[in-house]
Amino acid sequence: MLGIDPGTRLVGYGVVDHAGPTITYVECGVLKISTEQAMARRLRQIADGIAEVIRELSPGVMALEAAFHGVNASSALKLGQARGAIMVVAAVHDLAVFEYPPAMVKKAVVGHGRATKEEIAARVQLLCHLRRPPTADAADALAIAICHGHTGPARGGQERR
Amino acid sequence: MLGIDPGTRLVGYGVVDHAGPTITYVECGVLKISTEQAMARRLRQIADGIAEVIRELSPGVMALEAAFHGVNASSALKLGQARGAIMVVAAVHDLAVFEYPPAMVKKAVVGHGRATKEEIAARVQLLCHLRRPPTADAADALAIAICHGHTGPARGGQERR
Repeated sequence: MLGIDPGTRLVGYGVVDHAGPTITYVECGVLKISTEQAMARRLRQIADGIAEVIRELSPGVMALEAAFHGVNASSALKLGQARGAIMVVAAVHDLAVFEYPPAMVKKAVVGHGRATKEEIAARVQLLCHLRRPPTADAADALAIAICHGHTGPARGGQERR
Repeated sequence: MLGIDPGTRLVGYGVVDHAGPTITYVECGVLKISTEQAMARRLRQIADGIAEVIRELSPGVMALEAAFHGVNASSALKLGQARGAIMVVAAVHDLAVFEYPPAMVKKAVVGHGRATKEEIAARVQLLCHLRRPPTADAADALAIAICHGHTGPARGGQERR
């Protein structure tokens, strides 16, 4: 499954396989989007990057962090634009899109809902047997994918409506 | 040029040709998006619909209403998602995306920034030589396209960054 931490400058992605309680790390990375371009071209760069990840790694499901409720309308609009670009790619590739609030992701990965970025990265490193902790955006994306494996559809995860 | 009034349930579109001060109406309509589907599939429906309009009518530019600043974060996120889906399609088809605040659109079409929906539809009907006023979403989309023709790049319109 493919976890994504969306943004208009940095988009983290992480792919893991789940077999029961066992997690197998596949890949993670960060798309760096040039802020020099017009927004429509940045969004296309995001869409193309995610499409490439899907074509290469063939995940069956996409999981996104549910948008943060603390952000203001202008940030929410920008985040929404990035999410829209990503969700269209999911639909084109027939991936169902699930989403999880940040606190649920933290709880699933670290054990409590107030984990720091560093705690998430360290725990993701451990669960995925990585030599080094991934960068924050990639770690968040892997954490979302791991969360979906733990709490996914069978356990009440909801497809984004 | 293609004007779009984005939304997650109704997406208005309107195409006009500008030759100096003369406006030639080409087409307008509304994409009705099924709310029964998951959001990713709705966004794909929007993207496919806009792509079809672009393929059929070959507009050179896209103009969107600048997001309303009065909306809350949750509405802004949804509107952003619809805009993201639409802007990616623009980039794929090499259309530059311009945007105009609602008050500027109203001023360009009706003559003042506080025009009602009915005033906009009536004025758009007149400018486009239509037999009947278009529906509200189609009228707004045509108004945005007309606004771009009046106030576009040559007169300080800004490509969306």
